[in-house]
Amino acid sequence: MENANSFKFQKITIIGVGLIGGSFALALKKKKLCGHIVGFGRSEKNLKRAKNKKIIDSYELDPVTACKDSDLILFSTPVGFFLEIAKKIKNSLKPGAIVTDVGSVKGKLVYDIEKILPDKIYFVGGHPIAGSDQSGIDAASAEIFKNAKCIITPTGKTNKNAMKSIISIWKTLGSIVTIIDPYEHDRIYGAISHLPHVIAYNLVNTVAEIDSSYLLFSGQGFKDTTRIASSHHELWRDICILNRKNLLKYIEVFIKNLDEFKKHLKASDAKAIERDFINARNLREGLG
Amino acid sequence: MENANSFKFQKITIIGVGLIGGSFALALKKKKLCGHIVGFGRSEKNLKRAKNKKIIDSYELDPVTACKDSDLILFSTPVGFFLEIAKKIKNSLKPGAIVTDVGSVKGKLVYDIEKILPDKIYFVGGHPIAGSDQSGIDAASAEIFKNAKCIITPTGKTNKNAMKSIISIWKTLGSIVTIIDPYEHDRIYGAISHLPHVIAYNLVNTVAEIDSSYLLFSGQGFKDTTRIASSHHELWRDICILNRKNLLKYIEVFIKNLDEFKKHLKASDAKAIERDFINARNLREGLG
Repeated sequence: MENANSFKFQKITIIGVGLIGGSFALALKKKKLCGHIVGFGRSEKNLKRAKNKKIIDSYELDPVTACKDSDLILFSTPVGFFLEIAKKIKNSLKPGAIVTDVGSVKGKLVYDIEKILPDKIYFVGGHPIAGSDQSGIDAASAEIFKNAKCIITPTGKTNKNAMKSIISIWKTLGSIVTIIDPYEHDRIYGAISHLPHVIAYNLVNTVAEIDSSYLLFSGQGFKDTTRIASSHHELWRDICILNRKNLLKYIEVFIKNLDEFKKHLKASDAKAIERDFINARNLREGLG
Repeated sequence: MENANSFKFQKITIIGVGLIGGSFALALKKKKLCGHIVGFGRSEKNLKRAKNKKIIDSYELDPVTACKDSDLILFSTPVGFFLEIAKKIKNSLKPGAIVTDVGSVKGKLVYDIEKILPDKIYFVGGHPIAGSDQSGIDAASAEIFKNAKCIITPTGKTNKNAMKSIISIWKTLGSIVTIIDPYEHDRIYGAISHLPHVIAYNLVNTVAEIDSSYLLFSGQGFKDTTRIASSHHELWRDICILNRKNLLKYIEVFIKNLDEFKKHLKASDAKAIERDFINARNLREGLG
């Protein structure tokens, strides 16, 4: 059993109170891991709603005020805002504060945030695999991190105690924590998550371009294949841009393979098509 | 309420006793729409199993014997076998017999089958939208056609009474019947079903090529997007080849759009990327 007191925080700031930020706040409260939770975000309407729903205890419209005296700051906006926020708050953070995040991109971004934050502020990169096609506080729940993977991406500079605290939080929330190098994280999730999102968005747009009335004929297959195309456009815009190096390489491989398939199809090469399909089928069935 | 007797068949032959053929047999029995059901297929082991499970009443290893004296013959093998089977059985069918199918490709195939079958044999093309990534008789169930779409694809030559009987069957099994031109069917399902299958197979193979160990990190997003890559390779090989004209055109559109996205990504064009994602998101959310 973890000792909750060893990583209890008096004041916590959530930068971006949406599905993940809101769920983190709810889960911390449920586990009694926090004193006061302040929210910061772009929309006062959303922050008010979050306060009324008791997801946060108070809110601020200025990030510097929101982070003042905080023991733990969570970045949970779309990843494209992280550097800008880090720059804004860096000189007003309490020495010893821990900054962490829930971004789907790590790699260079982790090193860039580290460079911005002063010496006595401890950054720990994190990525709970708990997002979905849902977004916003109405979908927030204290339970979404239970049995979910959470990736922690330390660098050579990461403070060991801060990392221990962050790992303890996620474990207490029920997550399965894995430690991965920030760049390796982006190679993995670029392939298994970012590429599929691009493909799903592209598939919907392609069918609509062929004939949008055909969408009325969509069955469970099309719906499942494109479910993640309902994901939030700002989140995924930022993820794609920040992981574009890997993603561009992966899109090339995808197109190369699709071109290969096209050749087989043009030639009605049943053997080659079947071989490709069997290969994919065996791999996919292995995932359950 | 339909009058079941008006389209009750004394002897029915199921050519290809798998998920759909087996489910059709079970559903007919449940609704008491048939006398005796004979199964035909490539694997005696499978036919024996189907008989033991009381999905079929008897089986034959020769299609001609299987179809002898049958009032209704259902083609439910992979679509690539339909013409071969039609040629084999054409001269031994009972005059007045109805032949129908459950193939995912219609178009030219419907006209080709019509040409092969003699004058007093009535062909009605059909496509119940009830397939899944499951296959085989163990997944067969009398319930899979309930509330499922079923497309009927008549030609100028289709016998009106035979079509009425087939429509009555599907309605009695709970399906929602829609009548569509055979070629239009292939344009629609090429886009909304066949293209997504190709994309899902290609996505699994692409991630495996990037690094097969990354598959271990797959979450719900990847699993949903690639669920249909578990679909039966022979079925989908045949579907792709028979609908290759539409499919080749659609793959071109898909690649064109993906190339466009690549350009935006290379240029970190946040506006263009967001516009594409919003467009897809709105369309996808409209499907529920």
